[in-house]
Amino acid sequence: MTMNDTQDEVAIRTLIQDWAGAVRRQDMEGICRDHAADMVMFDVPPPLEARGLPSYVKTWEPFFRMSPKPVVFDIERLEIVAGDEVAFAIALMRCSSGEVGAIPGDLEFRLTVGLRKINNRWTVVHEHHSVPAES
Amino acid sequence: MTMNDTQDEVAIRTLIQDWAGAVRRQDMEGICRDHAADMVMFDVPPPLEARGLPSYVKTWEPFFRMSPKPVVFDIERLEIVAGDEVAFAIALMRCSSGEVGAIPGDLEFRLTVGLRKINNRWTVVHEHHSVPAES
Repeated sequence: MTMNDTQDEVAIRTLIQDWAGAVRRQDMEGICRDHAADMVMFDVPPPLEARGLPSYVKTWEPFFRMSPKPVVFDIERLEIVAGDEVAFAIALMRCSSGEVGAIPGDLEFRLTVGLRKINNRWTVVHEHHSVPAES
Repeated sequence: MTMNDTQDEVAIRTLIQDWAGAVRRQDMEGICRDHAADMVMFDVPPPLEARGLPSYVKTWEPFFRMSPKPVVFDIERLEIVAGDEVAFAIALMRCSSGEVGAIPGDLEFRLTVGLRKINNRWTVVHEHHSVPAES
C-alpha cells in the first residue's frame, strides 16, 4: 500500500488478502464471502471453466485434499486497477501441492481477479488461476 | 452483441475481435495496436509472466512458428464487464498448435483481458492466456 492507493484499491487489496487468508484456514464460507453467485472460475486443474458458486466451491476440494497442511497460499505480488464500478487485480501467488505441476512442492501460479461494485460493495465475478503449460 | 450492450462494451468487443483478426494475419503491429507499453502478459507457455510490449511481442514468436497455417485463433465466447474507466473481458478461445498441450491439433484455452481507458481510448494493460494443467 502506498499513499497513492485509492479507497477502492485499498478495499480490493484487503478483500483479496482476506480471501487468501480464508484459503489458508480452509474456511469455505470466508473464501466465498465476497463472490457473486454467477461468478466464472478458470482454475489450474481441469475443467476449462467452472460457472457459479457451487461449481467454484467444488474446485477447492481437490486443492485442500492434496495440499500439505498447513495450507500455503501466499500473495507474492498484487497489482490492482480500479475504476468506480469495475476493477481487476493481477497477482503472482505461491501454494504447496503434491498434485498440480510436475514437481511436488512449492508451486508459483498466476492469478487474475475481476470485480464489480454491487450495492456499493466490491464483489468477485471472475477468477483466473493458471500455471504455464509444460512444452 | 445485444441491444443492452453499452457503447464501451461494443468498443471493447470490437477491439478484441480486431486483435484476434490481427493474430490470424500474423500482423504484429495490429496485435499491439491497442496495448499499453507496460502491459503484463501471463501466457500459455513459460515464462510465468512477460512485462512490457517488447516481451509481449516475443511471446508471439513461438506461437506463430509452431502454428499450422492459416493460423487458427477463434473467439468461441466473449463476455465483457465494463465501467467508465476500467474493464475486463473473459473468453473461451480456440487455436491450433503442434506444440502446446499434449495432443497436437485444436486447443481450447481461456483468456482474460484487463483494460483501462487512457486518453478516452480503451487500452489493453493485461492479458492472461491459459490451459488447464495436466494432472
